[in-house]
Amino acid sequence: MPGQPQQEPNTISPFPASSKCYVSGTLHKSIRVPMREITLTPTAATAGGDGEGKKIPNPAVTLYDTSGPYTDPEAAIDLQRGLDPIRIEWIKARGDTEVYAGRTVQPEDDGCATSEGAERVARFPEASRRPTIRARSGANVTQMRYARQGIVTPEMEFVAIRENQRREAFAKDGHRQHPGESFGASIPSVITPEFVRDEIARGRALIPANINHPELEPMIIGRNFLVKINANIGNSAVASSIDEEVDKMIWAIRWGSDTVMDLSTGDNIHETREWIIRNSPVPIGTVPIYQALEKEGGEAEELTWEIFRDTLIEQAEQGVDFFTIHAGVLLRYVPLTAKRVAGIVSRGGSILAKWCLAHHQENFLYTHFEDICEIMKAYDIAFSLGDGLRPGSIADANDRAQFAELETLGELTDIAWKHDVQTMIEGPGHIPMHMIRENMTKQLEACHEAPFYTLGPLTTDIAPGYDHITSAIGAAMIGWYGCAMLCYVTPREHLGLPDREDVRDGVIAYKIAAHAADLAKGHPGAQLRDNAMSKARFEFRWEDQFNLSLTPDVGRQYHQEKSPEEGARQEHFCSMCGPKFCAMKITQSVRDYAIKHGLDDAEALKAGMKEQAQAFKESGGEVYQKS
Amino acid sequence: MPGQPQQEPNTISPFPASSKCYVSGTLHKSIRVPMREITLTPTAATAGGDGEGKKIPNPAVTLYDTSGPYTDPEAAIDLQRGLDPIRIEWIKARGDTEVYAGRTVQPEDDGCATSEGAERVARFPEASRRPTIRARSGANVTQMRYARQGIVTPEMEFVAIRENQRREAFAKDGHRQHPGESFGASIPSVITPEFVRDEIARGRALIPANINHPELEPMIIGRNFLVKINANIGNSAVASSIDEEVDKMIWAIRWGSDTVMDLSTGDNIHETREWIIRNSPVPIGTVPIYQALEKEGGEAEELTWEIFRDTLIEQAEQGVDFFTIHAGVLLRYVPLTAKRVAGIVSRGGSILAKWCLAHHQENFLYTHFEDICEIMKAYDIAFSLGDGLRPGSIADANDRAQFAELETLGELTDIAWKHDVQTMIEGPGHIPMHMIRENMTKQLEACHEAPFYTLGPLTTDIAPGYDHITSAIGAAMIGWYGCAMLCYVTPREHLGLPDREDVRDGVIAYKIAAHAADLAKGHPGAQLRDNAMSKARFEFRWEDQFNLSLTPDVGRQYHQEKSPEEGARQEHFCSMCGPKFCAMKITQSVRDYAIKHGLDDAEALKAGMKEQAQAFKESGGEVYQKS
Repeated sequence: MPGQPQQEPNTISPFPASSKCYVSGTLHKSIRVPMREITLTPTAATAGGDGEGKKIPNPAVTLYDTSGPYTDPEAAIDLQRGLDPIRIEWIKARGDTEVYAGRTVQPEDDGCATSEGAERVARFPEASRRPTIRARSGANVTQMRYARQGIVTPEMEFVAIRENQRREAFAKDGHRQHPGESFGASIPSVITPEFVRDEIARGRALIPANINHPELEPMIIGRNFLVKINANIGNSAVASSIDEEVDKMIWAIRWGSDTVMDLSTGDNIHETREWIIRNSPVPIGTVPIYQALEKEGGEAEELTWEIFRDTLIEQAEQGVDFFTIHAGVLLRYVPLTAKRVAGIVSRGGSILAKWCLAHHQENFLYTHFEDICEIMKAYDIAFSLGDGLRPGSIADANDRAQFAELETLGELTDIAWKHDVQTMIEGPGHIPMHMIRENMTKQLEACHEAPFYTLGPLTTDIAPGYDHITSAIGAAMIGWYGCAMLCYVTPREHLGLPDREDVRDGVIAYKIAAHAADLAKGHPGAQLRDNAMSKARFEFRWEDQFNLSLTPDVGRQYHQEKSPEEGARQEHFCSMCGPKFCAMKITQSVRDYAIKHGLDDAEALKAGMKEQAQAFKESGGEVYQKS
Repeated sequence: MPGQPQQEPNTISPFPASSKCYVSGTLHKSIRVPMREITLTPTAATAGGDGEGKKIPNPAVTLYDTSGPYTDPEAAIDLQRGLDPIRIEWIKARGDTEVYAGRTVQPEDDGCATSEGAERVARFPEASRRPTIRARSGANVTQMRYARQGIVTPEMEFVAIRENQRREAFAKDGHRQHPGESFGASIPSVITPEFVRDEIARGRALIPANINHPELEPMIIGRNFLVKINANIGNSAVASSIDEEVDKMIWAIRWGSDTVMDLSTGDNIHETREWIIRNSPVPIGTVPIYQALEKEGGEAEELTWEIFRDTLIEQAEQGVDFFTIHAGVLLRYVPLTAKRVAGIVSRGGSILAKWCLAHHQENFLYTHFEDICEIMKAYDIAFSLGDGLRPGSIADANDRAQFAELETLGELTDIAWKHDVQTMIEGPGHIPMHMIRENMTKQLEACHEAPFYTLGPLTTDIAPGYDHITSAIGAAMIGWYGCAMLCYVTPREHLGLPDREDVRDGVIAYKIAAHAADLAKGHPGAQLRDNAMSKARFEFRWEDQFNLSLTPDVGRQYHQEKSPEEGARQEHFCSMCGPKFCAMKITQSVRDYAIKHGLDDAEALKAGMKEQAQAFKESGGEVYQKS
């Protein structure tokens, strides 16, 4: 039974040398945007210089923080209570929602009617539940609707502050800054709430934020913002438990996951999801067809619109923030996959292909698409239009089936936007590097710049056990080209369900891909952390290096393993070069020389070189000395 | 004391379901090119079809094999004896070499004169040593000289067969083939020995093959060939031993490293290298300045051309195949690094910068470059012109210092080629994605298409502990753009020296990068392994998937952890979807339908859909049945 989050290792403790800080809103005073501030140690001034013995402080580095209240020592965490509903007053204040009884939870929701072995798990406590709400009759409560009405919501200001946080510090950063290449993205030097509103109104970005998920710390997905990553968790019929899944969610956001998808397919789907959502500060996505299928005992051909609709309502009331809907898998596209090496690899896609074949009818998600829109806008659930026909092998990349479906997803985007429903588009999959760009270009065109959300892509099929790497390569590239969110792939892909370490390895590989993409796009402020890291490295500030890295514990552990002696982390060399000669040490002499003489004066340079040579010899040739 | 290679886990055992085979030469009958053949299990024909119950065989997949005799159960391995000198008769037959006494090994060679604590390690047995050879007076024994004379050497035919091996099988592979995008590379559909000769004559490729390293199985580095990878090993003053380093070499080539650089900097450099070379089937590279510096007690300013020259001869006689020479670090470039965030991060670069500053003289490697060429051509050692001023942080990427040095490396390439000395160019380092292409373009131009050999590049600085991933992204991209060889980075980069698992993780990350690049370039045959893997995946041939992967043990272990029950690996579903519904299973129904009706006839398709729907329902909707 879930209680406190698992604590080993470090699920909820704050990061080293880090403190949680909150930035308040201007338009909306109640906003408190969480950030993580890393304190750095000072730089020791060089011996022999004017400042000998002085310590020059290094400014703290503030980071975008996805980890929620779990890393705030001030926050009282109780999984049985769920997180504080920080958005509840914002939602109430809009006056367009109503409390209603909601759907009664059925035994089928947890597989208990269909699965003999299903053990009922602990229900999320009744006392902790909040009333279920929906849009009042005739109202549309989506962020897109508000944006199109010109309203800047608290959610919009929240994400503006969140996205903007490093820009000011970066403007003061004295290091060389690369302009980036953005392939048509237009990333402003300052993100204003108005810019956020405009991007959402155009459909170029979305804030997944179901009104029944008030615990959410809003985040934005769009190619003019930081590239985001998603982690998939979820049990299946043969593995995992609620405890593990809630812990995986907290663990995934600790390392930087911006959203989490719960892809459970076994028993206790409903309760697993309830525990996850009540304790999640990040948007939760699902693929509702999985649960609908469970309710039908796993028989795709038995699926009906009524069962599916009921499942959407069930999940909408729980607070799911975005739904993957495979409405683009059309009957006529299914045979296009027949000659593929790997056929249909999307679970949702294959379920609907089977349904289409069995009934010889058009995909009911397609025929009922406007009905689905009605539900989405009553709760502000975002579409994640599923790519049911994505390629599952290099050989199948960019084929007719894939691009045919993409065209249809474009049509559906238009329909969703007609209803002011926020929408993003899912993408592949397995693509060799030279064919990745075509995906991004075609997606932007076909789907009118709706945000793209891809799985990887994996750039080769030959490395099961390392698909976090095969796919991080493709993910970084498509992120650079304009993909807004990258769905992670773990080392366990193709082999089994990820465990805790796999989740972290997947998240870190994708934080790397997303950050590399931000750098390449020239996202203002992205380079700040790299600069701070490299400066710390140059100055042998080991603890700062660990603390600035994506995984402080890993760096510290690796380094300690090789330098176990007392105080080793204070050493002014590293075990790669050894103490005798060290590239970093020698460079300091070059730097001191240049500062003294000025770099741009060729004559001074020439003279200085001679003088320096003499000084060098006299001092014994060891310029870099401990201060 | 080194004896048998370490056996745990699997250092020398053959790979599962794999056999070693050797392909003979046509021009040169004595050639035996090693390859690894993976036997696959047959495909079970679908139930209900014409072939019900039949087993359709899957052709074996033959792989490029870097692992040497260690994976050949027929080979007698004895580290005390070294590998068979397979090239010795080829070299003799050319009649342009002479046996000579060679330099006497000095205590300084192993640091015993300068380091008090140096323990002498076991010497490679005198009885196993072969006579030292060099070019006869006036002769030039480089592969480039032969190539320019129109001679196709056994080494050239060897690499032609090696590079060509998958092409024939690929021509018969029925799957969709992507043409690739090659950025000006011109990869032929068949690699002939003549093509190899021509590429070497032009300087667009090289075969590092010191005449004193006859144990070598030749390989080629050039952008019209498969992308290669290098693994760095080597002790330093504070870590590692000979045993470990020899084992790391065997371990690195087992997983696919094409060359190995021994970067030892501590004591026993000479003996470590001797053991490695005598037992290495791949080219060994070094950075001779490291050892020269050891001989001078670690004082860069004490270095002299005489000590350096003596070190080159010492290593040439041992059989080092390529030397990193930092001759492009010019005095006037050094101040250009002063304003960098990370200064000079190349060890060799920093040593020479220090020397230049201390003496106020031009880099002696530059002033003595033609003298070095004389040594290189007497043994056929290839230049790897070092990038001593490569950027060590994102902020420093593509700066004046880096590109100034690159221009000089271009001039040096011309001089090397004038002497018919094989040459490649080292490259960075730390580069954000959008600036990688510029490196490749500038290098091809400045260095007249001499092969590029880069370290990564790392695409962000923020992930110590995961720099195999930050750099695999950059490596894959620059490999696609035309980089010929990728120097690996391990998870331990920036933190310490890699251990055994780090070496493997680094090699695998780089095999992925190199292979992804081969796919993107459209290298004929590269996709064959991906296709075989994806077909095995589609057909739930689990053992074949493991055996086809880069690391059979990893896939098998991950899969077994999640499916421990007896026979789990025979299951026709995987733990991701569970038994109830599975994308792969459902696809088979689509495929059966398409085969029956033909895909391109729209009418048949329409009719068939209806018929299929009926059949589907009658059969209970489970089309994919075990055969």
